[in-house]
Amino acid sequence: MLRVVAERIRSVPDHPQPGVLFRDITPVLADGEALATVAAELAARTGQAELVAGVEARGFLFGAAAAVVAGIGTVPVRKEGKLPVVAASRSYDLEYGSATLELPAGIVEPGTPVYVVDDVLATGGTAAATCALLTEAGAEIVGFGTLLEITALRGRDALDGIRVDALLSA
Amino acid sequence: MLRVVAERIRSVPDHPQPGVLFRDITPVLADGEALATVAAELAARTGQAELVAGVEARGFLFGAAAAVVAGIGTVPVRKEGKLPVVAASRSYDLEYGSATLELPAGIVEPGTPVYVVDDVLATGGTAAATCALLTEAGAEIVGFGTLLEITALRGRDALDGIRVDALLSA
Repeated sequence: MLRVVAERIRSVPDHPQPGVLFRDITPVLADGEALATVAAELAARTGQAELVAGVEARGFLFGAAAAVVAGIGTVPVRKEGKLPVVAASRSYDLEYGSATLELPAGIVEPGTPVYVVDDVLATGGTAAATCALLTEAGAEIVGFGTLLEITALRGRDALDGIRVDALLSA
Repeated sequence: MLRVVAERIRSVPDHPQPGVLFRDITPVLADGEALATVAAELAARTGQAELVAGVEARGFLFGAAAAVVAGIGTVPVRKEGKLPVVAASRSYDLEYGSATLELPAGIVEPGTPVYVVDDVLATGGTAAATCALLTEAGAEIVGFGTLLEITALRGRDALDGIRVDALLSA
């Protein structure tokens, strides 16, 4: 089943900057079988998590799909300025540029086990900032799940101590 | 079941601008039962749709959840500059400001029945632009589903000829 998912990933050279090979997961989302497979595979790894945290914006898609299959809720980890009430925020460097992530207020109680989902694990900057933000709010990170790990970028190293579940690698 | 969903909607005054009462659906997403209810209610209305179109960014969350429950795929309708390959784009006025939406290339074939999902139907500007963009790409709009319709803003009027499924209204 994951072979169908792998076949749907589209590589786009020089996006968003020259030299970056962008992995476009849009065709995975659009294929009902592939989406269901990814959702089920991630849901199976949520363990005791009570929430799936999805990273804006593509992580929202797989995170929400995995949460509904697992029968739990999802919390969007958002880019700066989108949330009406913010619990905590964290700035970090990206592969290309920088960004700030925010966690909505009143959602993640201290001690809540949370599974983090994003579409692609590249350098791990976004993933590490997301996990740090959630940990700061008192969450217990159960693991980090991703559709595709770009192993050469060693993003896994940025998530020291956190279990990384990569459905596919490139 | 929808009563639980309604109880989870949080109203935040003066966001993102003075005078706007923002409806925060974050607590709905975070409640597994509420998320499952919304996903199932929307999925039941997708009919013959082969894709659920989710509007960036909160529409992604309910759209993906509904798609996976319906057993079909989802297509993200994105804000400008996010997609590596764009099929079509459309600019429109918002309740506060303006924006451009883009449809990914190679996903929506002419004749594809599509169900559109967003979290809240307010003035209908975003919803109408999304439907126009999809129609331009050749999609057949099966309907527009939303968690919450703000009836006083008459967004439904902007979607003339499109069936509107509002799970809740305020």
